[in-house]
Amino acid sequence: MKDYIVKDSWQIIEDQFRPEYNEISESIFSIGNGRMGQRANFEEDYSGKSLQGSYIAGVYYPDKTRVGWWKNGYPEYFAKVINSTNWIGLHLTVNGQLVDLAQAKVTRFERRLDMKSGVLHRQVELTLADNTELAITSRRLYSVHESQTAALAYEIKVLRGRAEIQLESGLDGDISNRDSNYEEKFWDEVSRSADDQHIALQLRTKKTGFEVLSRVSQNLVSADQNIVVSQVINQEKYVAQQFDFHLNEGQTATLYKKVAIVTSENHPIENLLKEATALSENFNAQSFADLLAKQEEGWSKIWKDSDIQIDGDVAAQQAIRFNIFQLYQTYTGEDARLNIGPKGFTGEKYGGVTYWDTEAYCLPFYMATTKPEIARNLLVYRHKHLQKAIENAEKLGFKNGAALYPMVTINGEECHNEWEITFEEIHRNGAIAFAIYNYVRYTGDSSYLQEYGLDVLIGIARFWAQRVNWSEQKQQYVMLGVTGPNEYENNVNNNWYTNRIASWCLKYTLQAIQHVESEDVNRLEDIFKTLNFDASEKDKWQHIIDNMYYPEDAERGVYLQQDGFLDKELIPVSELPASERPLNQKWSWDRILRSCYIKQADVLQGLYFLEDQYDLETIRRNYDFYEPLTVHESSLSPCVHAIMAAKLGKEDKAYEFYLRTSRLDLDDYNNDTEDGLHITSMAGTWMTIVEGFAGLRVRDGKLHFQPILPKEWNGYNFRIHFRGADLQVAVSKNQLKFKNSGDSTANLVVNGQSQNVEANGEITLENIAISE
Amino acid sequence: MKDYIVKDSWQIIEDQFRPEYNEISESIFSIGNGRMGQRANFEEDYSGKSLQGSYIAGVYYPDKTRVGWWKNGYPEYFAKVINSTNWIGLHLTVNGQLVDLAQAKVTRFERRLDMKSGVLHRQVELTLADNTELAITSRRLYSVHESQTAALAYEIKVLRGRAEIQLESGLDGDISNRDSNYEEKFWDEVSRSADDQHIALQLRTKKTGFEVLSRVSQNLVSADQNIVVSQVINQEKYVAQQFDFHLNEGQTATLYKKVAIVTSENHPIENLLKEATALSENFNAQSFADLLAKQEEGWSKIWKDSDIQIDGDVAAQQAIRFNIFQLYQTYTGEDARLNIGPKGFTGEKYGGVTYWDTEAYCLPFYMATTKPEIARNLLVYRHKHLQKAIENAEKLGFKNGAALYPMVTINGEECHNEWEITFEEIHRNGAIAFAIYNYVRYTGDSSYLQEYGLDVLIGIARFWAQRVNWSEQKQQYVMLGVTGPNEYENNVNNNWYTNRIASWCLKYTLQAIQHVESEDVNRLEDIFKTLNFDASEKDKWQHIIDNMYYPEDAERGVYLQQDGFLDKELIPVSELPASERPLNQKWSWDRILRSCYIKQADVLQGLYFLEDQYDLETIRRNYDFYEPLTVHESSLSPCVHAIMAAKLGKEDKAYEFYLRTSRLDLDDYNNDTEDGLHITSMAGTWMTIVEGFAGLRVRDGKLHFQPILPKEWNGYNFRIHFRGADLQVAVSKNQLKFKNSGDSTANLVVNGQSQNVEANGEITLENIAISE
Repeated sequence: MKDYIVKDSWQIIEDQFRPEYNEISESIFSIGNGRMGQRANFEEDYSGKSLQGSYIAGVYYPDKTRVGWWKNGYPEYFAKVINSTNWIGLHLTVNGQLVDLAQAKVTRFERRLDMKSGVLHRQVELTLADNTELAITSRRLYSVHESQTAALAYEIKVLRGRAEIQLESGLDGDISNRDSNYEEKFWDEVSRSADDQHIALQLRTKKTGFEVLSRVSQNLVSADQNIVVSQVINQEKYVAQQFDFHLNEGQTATLYKKVAIVTSENHPIENLLKEATALSENFNAQSFADLLAKQEEGWSKIWKDSDIQIDGDVAAQQAIRFNIFQLYQTYTGEDARLNIGPKGFTGEKYGGVTYWDTEAYCLPFYMATTKPEIARNLLVYRHKHLQKAIENAEKLGFKNGAALYPMVTINGEECHNEWEITFEEIHRNGAIAFAIYNYVRYTGDSSYLQEYGLDVLIGIARFWAQRVNWSEQKQQYVMLGVTGPNEYENNVNNNWYTNRIASWCLKYTLQAIQHVESEDVNRLEDIFKTLNFDASEKDKWQHIIDNMYYPEDAERGVYLQQDGFLDKELIPVSELPASERPLNQKWSWDRILRSCYIKQADVLQGLYFLEDQYDLETIRRNYDFYEPLTVHESSLSPCVHAIMAAKLGKEDKAYEFYLRTSRLDLDDYNNDTEDGLHITSMAGTWMTIVEGFAGLRVRDGKLHFQPILPKEWNGYNFRIHFRGADLQVAVSKNQLKFKNSGDSTANLVVNGQSQNVEANGEITLENIAISE
Repeated sequence: MKDYIVKDSWQIIEDQFRPEYNEISESIFSIGNGRMGQRANFEEDYSGKSLQGSYIAGVYYPDKTRVGWWKNGYPEYFAKVINSTNWIGLHLTVNGQLVDLAQAKVTRFERRLDMKSGVLHRQVELTLADNTELAITSRRLYSVHESQTAALAYEIKVLRGRAEIQLESGLDGDISNRDSNYEEKFWDEVSRSADDQHIALQLRTKKTGFEVLSRVSQNLVSADQNIVVSQVINQEKYVAQQFDFHLNEGQTATLYKKVAIVTSENHPIENLLKEATALSENFNAQSFADLLAKQEEGWSKIWKDSDIQIDGDVAAQQAIRFNIFQLYQTYTGEDARLNIGPKGFTGEKYGGVTYWDTEAYCLPFYMATTKPEIARNLLVYRHKHLQKAIENAEKLGFKNGAALYPMVTINGEECHNEWEITFEEIHRNGAIAFAIYNYVRYTGDSSYLQEYGLDVLIGIARFWAQRVNWSEQKQQYVMLGVTGPNEYENNVNNNWYTNRIASWCLKYTLQAIQHVESEDVNRLEDIFKTLNFDASEKDKWQHIIDNMYYPEDAERGVYLQQDGFLDKELIPVSELPASERPLNQKWSWDRILRSCYIKQADVLQGLYFLEDQYDLETIRRNYDFYEPLTVHESSLSPCVHAIMAAKLGKEDKAYEFYLRTSRLDLDDYNNDTEDGLHITSMAGTWMTIVEGFAGLRVRDGKLHFQPILPKEWNGYNFRIHFRGADLQVAVSKNQLKFKNSGDSTANLVVNGQSQNVEANGEITLENIAISE
């Protein structure tokens, strides 16, 4: 854990040069616009610790799988979102000395991410070997207005001395991934061009053949002189312009560098040049000040819908905004082919591809904070991959349209290759089905079922029906050899969560069939015909639903995480020496596996998803049994626990979990922020406030609230979209305000009491029970 | 499965040139002498399929571990016995054409391994592009007389035309392993020398620093002329002599190439040159005919003790001799630092290192067929590694001298890196303890316990005592998260075999303590002191022994392979479509894991080891339950099943298993002989005859027999050493002969009847029950 980020409600600030934390800061200060993004690398050369990274959503490389021991069924490759053309890079030479913060004496340093406007600032003062003193100020943005563009202003001021300057600023395509399985480079050059007006570089990924054309227009402005391009550099995978000039003490020059990046994902290859040129020229015609204004305007629209304000706790305020900011930098929902990588555009780890995190954690955030099409696109993403999921299941021996969605994917194909995860962590199928239910529940848009949802549900239901087997011994259906959400258990039998979500999927699929039948029987017949659906499948499903085995301990009144869980030694986490934590760094894998320690919610994840089917005491018993055994070594763990703790009236515990999840990256809680940010778990932070503290639930088409206020706060407010209502919710001590800016009435149930907030109306509830 | 090896009782013969099978034949025709060995590569250039391989026991490279996903506790490297200097290689150029069987027209081809003399022969007739016809005859041996030497005679005869010949014969140190994790080369050159009298090359392995000096003396003899070295080639990692000469039609020249190979394993580095020179010169002074005679003499001594003769079934005869021959080529037992790699010197796969195969399968073979010191050396090997086994256990969180022997090792450190095997297939510890028991039982040499055995047993017992845990639920000790011998299950709870062998180890360790106490109480005190042994440990062990949980099914009267086994769908292997076999090639790993199918004996392995503790009906019930579910996809499976089947009177089944194990490599049963031979399972073939058909058991210091005769055979005989007796056992229809050439009486129990065979005496039992 670290504590070097300056607390501020809208800014993320690093106020000293800390080379040892540079890779952490590069992650934290990342910027992006949902289509592209970038770590906060320095523009000029830097010989210290740095992980270079600029990424483009959907552009991936199928990196040949690396394993020690091949198991039948492993995928051939791991798809990676790959480091792409470095457009910010420049070489700055002053009086013959290459400027490099690792070599110069840095006398002042500030890195600042302005979340309100989506701009990354850096201010440095440094002294070179010849005692020349410089100030460098850079501002960078990935446009949320035109997502194929990004821009940079790089100002050099001479504070002391006189500077003969060479500034070479280019496009570098000779880049590699640190996370390459076989140290390959992933890009070939297609073409390049460079003159004194522009530079452009077109690359193609090996194997996948994505083409990316980057085109830069840049100019160097100084109040004191007219600076033109001195030299054009044009070589394999690298194009640049060089400016030679001098500045006297007190003089300033600013490089404005604007890039358009177009890809074959969005344009026919033959049009790339034309598109990039048009975009680049149009973009270049706008002043940097205009770009900044548009950027702030764009972000203000996002913040209007998604901001959460916390009164009285600047650390918490900064943290929640940081989480929301990074989510919207990663995914804006406009392109149904894209999804939310666990590291977004902030690092290479986990390949930048889709996990069940999207459905389980991110969907609620996007449903509430933006228009429903965005959440719908997240569902459609999986619909597009249904055929691949069926093929994936076939590789594992399933038949007849059974679909197993991949654990990790970028194009619908499985990428992951630990057998205990890839083949066995099949509960992901449950989260994908649950997301459909959750979407329909939240939006009321049940037409999604007939349009896209039912195909997916039937594929998933077929998988579960084949994946269980009848136990002669138990005279019930069992599910053998799975890994539950708690990845600190592998290859277990009858993971309660998996059995439960499987049976729930079957039941919901039957309901969905019934729903589509009642809405549009022809459509249902079409679907059945296309899917070769036999009515007897429904009977089989019902038989499984009626006869599924769920491990439990009657005496304790708890569900058992899996068969045999009670054979373990049950020693609470609190009794583990601190020196042995985190377990995943201190204990060998086998020791973790046979221990009772739980990485993240497992039984509790099921009780969270299906909480309306369980009474409070059941939830309490299970929470009280499992939470003390949980080490929360997944970034996805604290949020579910916070929500449950809040529900159970364990407010201090809920707040403790909130802190842990919300500042996970800002404070580098798990010592791994340098690899990139934990993007998907950031949605869990949002859930912690909205579902946890405010107690938001949707039941029968109504919004339910049961708010608590952490005693460290004076109040908090957030905004959610719900079926035409646009509701501002403000919680303060003993007062609860709802303001509806939407055009539909919001039907609420607050602490069990129905309340309606008319369109454009508001209500204030005083003296009601707000626990704190 | 293939059927191209010509059946012959003493020879392995390939009578046609089959380039497509060349890598298989290279494995099958491998030669070695326990210290060094080699695949049957051609001497001259060959551009077809070939896996080059010459290996030296104990010389390894710690190849950096390759995994997809690192788990805490993985070893840093996988030790590999590595391909070393190629001393057989030569370039033969005839009338300007490089001789290469893949390019020439091969008109006759025979590869023949004479097992009686330990010589590899090859005869080829070929036509070159210019119609020159040649005959090449080569003979090769790894001396069993002086294990640091090997020799080659390579004869060239011109059958048609006139041949201008360049023959370049050298030492090539620029070699690599196909099985290299990161495509590294493992050797650096230390020095080289070459003149017209000799060539020599000294290499050092990277990281491990083993030095190997190869020194060749060679001469080219032709009846018709005096041929001398025309040119000496001396370059980085390569030295050679070139002979330029011509042969007329009908003329012959023979290259005699003799190599001495000395290593820093056996000599101080500074002496290597001196040792090699002396050895080489002495060796060179012997004619090739002398070498052949000595080789045959050496092998005749081995055969005298170890041969099994089978009357009436040449395929079975050839097979058993092939198995015995390869075992003695791999391991002669003279060096306690060496062990029996699963592929011996015949390939790279599995790294050429030690598995539990040694204790479970090979030990009985070496105990019976040679002097007891050899078997003892196999035990001492593990004793030498005790400290490393303790460190290995410490890495996994065990304390207080608990020892976990590695799954795979060359120097005592763990090499393997699949968590489900490395960390969980801990039953290997049981086999290592059982081997001590087995050795003492067989040899009566209980002094081994006080000398070496008890330390190892205590380390192992401590491991088990920490590895179990008390289940509050069961009120018994359980063992969670293991992989049993059946590797088609991973991370199971309470594998019956592992629980059983663990408890047995504890019990045997207590007995061993008692034994040492009664023999030499001072020694015991010394051991206790050294090991920091607390008497309360014994009480803990006894408590575990008395309260261990064993899963079983009372109704069926069978032990359960592990908890939950009966939740599986139990469908006999016989109902699986042939197209789905072998499962490990056709099914995904998860499907195998959740199926009921068993790779190799698991419960039955326990009943085999501890059979005297179970009545015949219990063994029968378990065999009848498990064997139909067993796919025998481990080469170690058929032998245990054959022995059990024989015991249970299932003679046809026993014979079926015998065939499967004995010709596994000769007929390439599993399509993997090209990777190398299944050396350790070859000992299982021997056990199938001796323990299976002849029913050999040792009980109370006596040899028990209960012979059956496969109906396909007229008879069989074998020889075993037992406590000073040297017993020839001959089984034929209704007649059983025992001849004792040793100097102690052999106390036998035949079909339950005591029989003694005096020293140098013999007995013949007629008309006794020999099932057939």
